Amino acid sequence: MIKVGIVGGTGYTGVELLRLLAAHPQVSLQVITSRADAGMPVSQMFPSLRGFVGLEFSHPDHACLEQCDVVFFATPNGIAMRQVRALLDAGVKVIDLAADFRLQDIATWEKWYGMNHACPDLVAEAVYGLPEVNRAQIKVARLVANPGCYPTAVQLGFIPLLEAGVIATDSLIADAKSGVSGAGRKAEISSLFAEAGDNFKAYGVAGHRHLPEIKQGLARVKNSEVGLTFVPHLTPLIRGIHATLYGKLTREIDLQALFEERYQHEPFVDVMPAGSLPETRSVRGSNRCRIAVHRPQGGDTVVVLSVIDNLVKGAAGQAVQNMNIMFGLPETTALNIVPLLP
Amino acid sequence: MIKVGIVGGTGYTGVELLRLLAAHPQVSLQVITSRADAGMPVSQMFPSLRGFVGLEFSHPDHACLEQCDVVFFATPNGIAMRQVRALLDAGVKVIDLAADFRLQDIATWEKWYGMNHACPDLVAEAVYGLPEVNRAQIKVARLVANPGCYPTAVQLGFIPLLEAGVIATDSLIADAKSGVSGAGRKAEISSLFAEAGDNFKAYGVAGHRHLPEIKQGLARVKNSEVGLTFVPHLTPLIRGIHATLYGKLTREIDLQALFEERYQHEPFVDVMPAGSLPETRSVRGSNRCRIAVHRPQGGDTVVVLSVIDNLVKGAAGQAVQNMNIMFGLPETTALNIVPLLP
Amino acid sequence: MIKVGIVGGTGYTGVELLRLLAAHPQVSLQVITSRADAGMPVSQMFPSLRGFVGLEFSHPDHACLEQCDVVFFATPNGIAMRQVRALLDAGVKVIDLAADFRLQDIATWEKWYGMNHACPDLVAEAVYGLPEVNRAQIKVARLVANPGCYPTAVQLGFIPLLEAGVIATDSLIADAKSGVSGAGRKAEISSLFAEAGDNFKAYGVAGHRHLPEIKQGLARVKNSEVGLTFVPHLTPLIRGIHATLYGKLTREIDLQALFEERYQHEPFVDVMPAGSLPETRSVRGSNRCRIAVHRPQGGDTVVVLSVIDNLVKGAAGQAVQNMNIMFGLPETTALNIVPLLP
Amino acid sequence: MIKVGIVGGTGYTGVELLRLLAAHPQVSLQVITSRADAGMPVSQMFPSLRGFVGLEFSHPDHACLEQCDVVFFATPNGIAMRQVRALLDAGVKVIDLAADFRLQDIATWEKWYGMNHACPDLVAEAVYGLPEVNRAQIKVARLVANPGCYPTAVQLGFIPLLEAGVIATDSLIADAKSGVSGAGRKAEISSLFAEAGDNFKAYGVAGHRHLPEIKQGLARVKNSEVGLTFVPHLTPLIRGIHATLYGKLTREIDLQALFEERYQHEPFVDVMPAGSLPETRSVRGSNRCRIAVHRPQGGDTVVVLSVIDNLVKGAAGQAVQNMNIMFGLPETTALNIVPLLP
Repeated sequence: MIKVGIVGGTGYTGVELLRLLAAHPQVSLQVITSRADAGMPVSQMFPSLRGFVGLEFSHPDHACLEQCDVVFFATPNGIAMRQVRALLDAGVKVIDLAADFRLQDIATWEKWYGMNHACPDLVAEAVYGLPEVNRAQIKVARLVANPGCYPTAVQLGFIPLLEAGVIATDSLIADAKSGVSGAGRKAEISSLFAEAGDNFKAYGVAGHRHLPEIKQGLARVKNSEVGLTFVPHLTPLIRGIHATLYGKLTREIDLQALFEERYQHEPFVDVMPAGSLPETRSVRGSNRCRIAVHRPQGGDTVVVLSVIDNLVKGAAGQAVQNMNIMFGLPETTALNIVPLLP
Repeated sequence: MIKVGIVGGTGYTGVELLRLLAAHPQVSLQVITSRADAGMPVSQMFPSLRGFVGLEFSHPDHACLEQCDVVFFATPNGIAMRQVRALLDAGVKVIDLAADFRLQDIATWEKWYGMNHACPDLVAEAVYGLPEVNRAQIKVARLVANPGCYPTAVQLGFIPLLEAGVIATDSLIADAKSGVSGAGRKAEISSLFAEAGDNFKAYGVAGHRHLPEIKQGLARVKNSEVGLTFVPHLTPLIRGIHATLYGKLTREIDLQALFEERYQHEPFVDVMPAGSLPETRSVRGSNRCRIAVHRPQGGDTVVVLSVIDNLVKGAAGQAVQNMNIMFGLPETTALNIVPLLP
Repeated sequence: MIKVGIVGGTGYTGVELLRLLAAHPQVSLQVITSRADAGMPVSQMFPSLRGFVGLEFSHPDHACLEQCDVVFFATPNGIAMRQVRALLDAGVKVIDLAADFRLQDIATWEKWYGMNHACPDLVAEAVYGLPEVNRAQIKVARLVANPGCYPTAVQLGFIPLLEAGVIATDSLIADAKSGVSGAGRKAEISSLFAEAGDNFKAYGVAGHRHLPEIKQGLARVKNSEVGLTFVPHLTPLIRGIHATLYGKLTREIDLQALFEERYQHEPFVDVMPAGSLPETRSVRGSNRCRIAVHRPQGGDTVVVLSVIDNLVKGAAGQAVQNMNIMFGLPETTALNIVPLLP
Repeated sequence: MIKVGIVGGTGYTGVELLRLLAAHPQVSLQVITSRADAGMPVSQMFPSLRGFVGLEFSHPDHACLEQCDVVFFATPNGIAMRQVRALLDAGVKVIDLAADFRLQDIATWEKWYGMNHACPDLVAEAVYGLPEVNRAQIKVARLVANPGCYPTAVQLGFIPLLEAGVIATDSLIADAKSGVSGAGRKAEISSLFAEAGDNFKAYGVAGHRHLPEIKQGLARVKNSEVGLTFVPHLTPLIRGIHATLYGKLTREIDLQALFEERYQHEPFVDVMPAGSLPETRSVRGSNRCRIAVHRPQGGDTVVVLSVIDNLVKGAAGQAVQNMNIMFGLPETTALNIVPLLP
């Protein structure tokens, strides 16, 4: 059994990790920390876990995380980077669901996240945990930077086109829409039901922290910068991201075949039949990304539609997928979940 | 023109007052206070008001409220009671949308609201602003306590039955459901879209502050205590209250005729035809209460269905109705709004 | 492996059966019928099932259902009663998720469902599939009438009180609220997003088909009629039922202990701690019923709050639970699902 | 008083016309037709209109529409074109809220709408009712083709850029999101609450009927074809369209000033301050279009955000605006409505 610890278990990625790990046959949940709620049974905060998780929240100072085999950080940005070194030194593997280790360029990270980085050397070691790109490195990693939700949906949609070199890389557009759980379980007015309900808006148009992460991921494909306009929107969903991606074709290609071949061995990327229109609910609660590729009116603009559940493939599910890879388990263990529809 | 001031304009009752007063032909909006947002244009916080409200939020200390003809308090409980006396002394009429003046029994108020009352003598003077019951007193009042949202929906549904003396008063049941805006524009986790959305729950079963207010209102009818079980629920609506009321009939009566006669001259209470099932959206954005009365299977249980928009008839609209009455205007001025459906 | 057939697989109970059965380790899905969509891959209608269900819809005339071990009817009322006899004669067990076999009194059934019953003798044989009441009979049944969604939530809430004989049985009140999926996957204006969204209403106040079913279930406890007022409401949820139940206590009792003892061995009934307020989302996607019992202000009215997922414990999940019992499997097989929250 | 008739009053544009016209001081509502519901009081179908609209639905054959001054068609496509000539001949002005007269090219219309056009000569006469472009022609028109919802939001966002000639016209992208009321009050499975709720998807990617309408409108600006990729999405809103528009800048310009100048005299187009992020709810129930223009990271991609209420500025409100213009009334009569927020 893999002994698992979770730092910061009171947010949506935390409860989602618990949902998935509670059903994982190789996992023994050891500890979940919360500074504010130490001593409270986890299932009191999340009654959905009654009967599944018997743990109480532990105070971070007495959590004995170094006795775990792997620790997930489901914390705000800037927390993991202060605690990871000690864990790695103790032989614990770490998967950070926050952004601390996602950007290889430290200056870029510090600019977008507004703080100094505590351990640039570990950034260099960290593996970006997008299995469809980095599976081999994840397998041997001590420290995995779990991708952001938008970056997962956007990269999986663009990568086949970029790898094949069939679209102009200077003018990519990603028009992305997220459910409100993406804002986290934080008491903020903009996330209130009476604010976000029956309402639709763009945000972060001037600049969103996922922009450099996406650009880094896309640039790796060809070892060259890409030009990307990224506009995220808030939509009255609880869960789900829908990315609508636009690119200019530079040469003829069978787009459907391209995508199907790229992802034919991927357990969690479903290239839908030509003409499909993936719905966010078709992946609700599951680790799948469903993708369809279109070429409207046969023009030279390719449109890719990519949907994920932001809390699963966009966060906790991908983290468990990474754990499975890191520990040599079948990659789909505990993740082969039928989406909840309706 | 009536010079109007609003204390505490940044919540949902505040913006709703602004929506209604901006279209009121006899009102000149003078001042809106907000300690935290002084200096910000009101329409920056609420873009829906762009083009309608040119004011900025004023700091409460420099608001010159005593130059108004009437001041609305759209503040948390416990604020109005500290400021009302000075305004009344300056000849300003006051309508409090919070609970400070709703309960005549000071001990009861202090128990439910957890603080000492600052001006018990003014409580004695205050008129409970339910026009369908107290129109004459409101007309001459200096200080009106605007009713709570649940109390409005529940009292209007029970009053005809109690006045006619046709139901047992020891075992009334009010099963009420409210939209999330009823919790106010406050950053609380329980009101988040991802918490309150696609979810339904009861709350305050052990005791809710609107219970003593409702009991006081119903007791007045017959000058005797009533026994009431009140269970409020949170439902994924933005606006709307639906009260389902149960009582035991003690004698035969034509229920439909009883309700129609009671409310025949009321501009804002619509007794629907027999068999109707009022929807909350049929009053969305309007000051109407729609009521239907049923007697399932011809038994001795009467079921009353009563719907209001919690922000209008349950708050700001009723406050404007009270203002109209206090200033001798036609009662429907600025309130004859067609509900927004769908 | 249990060979399973489903008649009528295109509605919400159908797709929910598929979700649960696709993950059932002892089930081999043989056939799913749909007259209108014969030949279409199931996963084309429900993309959530892509990768999990490879079957196509079969035309009912060529479905070879008699080769199954068990057949689920997820059909409109009145279909199963015409087909069940032949299946039973062929040795196939049947679980009907519609209402054809729920009411033992044929005249009552014919009145509420507006048609003649095709096989009254099989009604007499059928077992009402509420395991918490009828587990032993279900174990040996050939034909199980799966309970309705409201009846499940309401009966589980009232039964401990009735069995203990501590409430007046002449004036029970069940104020129930259902998500819109309860209306089925049918093209009806009243179920449109723009009609049912941001709206709340009662319906069926004059009489709902689940009323006689609930009354039958409650009457069985004491072998005597109960007086029940049942008011269902439509609330803007996708899934979920919240029943708020009211009864008059006739003698003192420890209500919390009563409920805990009654359900201590039930795998799918969770009696929550005293003071709890169960949320519908705490059972989303799961077969659990969560219950809390209250006695507001220590008065003589008991309030029971009971929540289920109408498509799981209220339909498909309970049907699988019944199948597990009928085939001697552990009752929780394929049903020990962590609810999806948020 | 202007005598008004409405053909097809049972859909969402019909009830919205009634909401607006019931409050119009110069309008006398004469007749509303519905073949299926003739004889039913309008307020029975739409209880929101109780107390405001006393009419019953009339059978189209006995509607005496030719005695009206103006007739609105709120009908499915293909109805108005068969009835308009007789009305025009009788001296009645006509505003068609459907698509019959929107496309000047008959072959294009017949291709996209799948039927032969009944009166191509009247198409030539019809004026496209976008006041911000065609106000002078609308003033003298007998027949106005009211624009589609998406075309209104998209054209108002692109027009300033095209008129100024500052973006490449061969690669425009319009990523648009609509609330579900845009699909009409039709019993369709895809519009059910349990289908469209908590779900997000693109549709019509291969081709949507509003594409040729938008292209026609944009081409008129420069008398030359534009290249446009238009991807509409369905989002779980009741009302609202959010169009996110992308174009490539071809020369430097002060975008904020450009938009402000273009719309400075338009009563219903609100250019928001630089950096704004318009929300759909900020125009809920109102005839306003709110627009913000962005240039992310100072690059050469301009992003325009344009929001309208699809049932008001996108349908009924714009129709009333056109009526006001056609009859020489102040353009904002009955349309100066404060949006409903929250």
